[in-house]
Amino acid sequence: MYQMPELISKFSKFLTDHKIKRVPSTLYDPVNYIMNLGGKRIRPALVLASYNLYREDVNEAMEAAYAIEMFHNFSLVHDDIMDEASLRRGKPTVHIKYDNNSAILSGDVMMILAYQYFEKYDESVFKSCVQCFTDTNLLVCEGQRMDMDFETMTNVTIDQYIKMIELKTSVLIGAAMKIGALIGSASVADADHLYQFGKNIGIAFQIQDDILDVFGQSEKVGKVKAGDIIQNKKTYLYLKSLELLGESDKQKLLKLYSTSEVSDTEKVELVTKLFKSAHVMPYAEELKSAYMNLAYSHIDAVKVDEANKSVLKEFAKYLIERNS
Amino acid sequence: MYQMPELISKFSKFLTDHKIKRVPSTLYDPVNYIMNLGGKRIRPALVLASYNLYREDVNEAMEAAYAIEMFHNFSLVHDDIMDEASLRRGKPTVHIKYDNNSAILSGDVMMILAYQYFEKYDESVFKSCVQCFTDTNLLVCEGQRMDMDFETMTNVTIDQYIKMIELKTSVLIGAAMKIGALIGSASVADADHLYQFGKNIGIAFQIQDDILDVFGQSEKVGKVKAGDIIQNKKTYLYLKSLELLGESDKQKLLKLYSTSEVSDTEKVELVTKLFKSAHVMPYAEELKSAYMNLAYSHIDAVKVDEANKSVLKEFAKYLIERNS
Repeated sequence: MYQMPELISKFSKFLTDHKIKRVPSTLYDPVNYIMNLGGKRIRPALVLASYNLYREDVNEAMEAAYAIEMFHNFSLVHDDIMDEASLRRGKPTVHIKYDNNSAILSGDVMMILAYQYFEKYDESVFKSCVQCFTDTNLLVCEGQRMDMDFETMTNVTIDQYIKMIELKTSVLIGAAMKIGALIGSASVADADHLYQFGKNIGIAFQIQDDILDVFGQSEKVGKVKAGDIIQNKKTYLYLKSLELLGESDKQKLLKLYSTSEVSDTEKVELVTKLFKSAHVMPYAEELKSAYMNLAYSHIDAVKVDEANKSVLKEFAKYLIERNS
Repeated sequence: MYQMPELISKFSKFLTDHKIKRVPSTLYDPVNYIMNLGGKRIRPALVLASYNLYREDVNEAMEAAYAIEMFHNFSLVHDDIMDEASLRRGKPTVHIKYDNNSAILSGDVMMILAYQYFEKYDESVFKSCVQCFTDTNLLVCEGQRMDMDFETMTNVTIDQYIKMIELKTSVLIGAAMKIGALIGSASVADADHLYQFGKNIGIAFQIQDDILDVFGQSEKVGKVKAGDIIQNKKTYLYLKSLELLGESDKQKLLKLYSTSEVSDTEKVELVTKLFKSAHVMPYAEELKSAYMNLAYSHIDAVKVDEANKSVLKEFAKYLIERNS
């Protein structure tokens, strides 16, 4: 078994060696830009790690890992247009560096390229991977739409929020695990357990992301500090705080999320303060743990050597405890 | 052999019966809107006609036809954002009826849905179809990018223009023919000839489209009259006119395409007049014929009954002679 840092480094090398060389460059330069902007490479590394539960030659799963990372980056490019985000991994987003039309079209081509990278696999593996990939990609778009719809909804529930992050973020992590397993000729039962492992890790991962957005160090995260608050994103921290706060503080929080009278800086400061007085963090930690435990129950059911599972378990732990 | 109007009507019925019922509706309403806005349904009908050269049960190819039409409509949704087009088939474009973000995201989901419709085919046909589909979709994006790049280029050649429309429009018509053939278990040679037939018909079809944009009846075309001229599109009519006109008229045409001082109505009138004095139409007709002849040479090489080919030949003739 390879350790996660080794898999991430193998993938990074593959990425450096596989810049897109097609023309016109006006179409592909933005693709190479975003793909080489860094990022944690969690999804591709998980494809390789999942494959590695069954087989040693992880290069065999490299193209699938690339496809997943390409799709993930496609979704970032289009989401950043929709969210009007200016920074990604500490650098200008694609639509800022180039322009909106370039970001739309180069995003489109990334999704198509992702499909092309599965072509190396034989007909049977190709079909099962592409099917899982397509089903997942639909869900990711549905999650993004829910996220957009939440912006103007005043009655979002915590359940709806969890459903949204499950779709927008977690199913792709599940698919990364499943696709790695499928290429490694895992049983259907194993592949499905690995999907569930990834999906539940993904939910915990997103809750951690929401926490870092507010309480993390922005220079490490590489995004605008507390962008979620500025954009009135109804995260778990916000929704649970509404539940926990007394009536007067609750009204303050609601008002801060519905007014444009307060400056961004002041808004971030006041909302953060309210999150703190709501003592929301222990609840967020508990929720993360619940999803982690669910994830562990699925990896426990996977029929491979216990020793091999430890890489994945440790990585999962790192993901939800990371501070950037 | 079914006649083309029968195939178009079968496809339209399938479309009516297969509205997308997934949620959230904010994501899928725009998809159902554009898919049911009408249109000539040329591409899906050609999938069915090509399949029908080999087999009778055209319903077998219906999902592939649907996938091709879905991808085509995805490209319209995103192109209309980029071109800031307000009308499509006489109705508001998706980004006008909904908004830009909805058009981006619902467009994305259409491309993914298109892939899903191939899943009904067995592993071998699935892989060959998806591979052809993916390769083609990449080319379509490359063509769209060339089209965008041409807007600010002053030295576009007729060859570059033909390459652009080959990518942006024609290869998808080629792919429609090839995919129909693949599902019908055609030989590789036949499938490739049908691809070339479709591709060359597609080039002639686009030249006719450019002619109709300027000289057609806009109420029939359902787009803004002479939108190409308003947007300074460097079509064959424009590029060939530059070649044919005397120096003084040539300068007038160049100026009209580079100034914003003249109103749209006046610009359309003056440019149309210059196209007429250049006597560009016989050249456009000749070019269409050349591509039609190339297309015919490929269908002649296909190893099926001559009688069966006549449906396709007649339809090709209709496409380049149509007046709307």
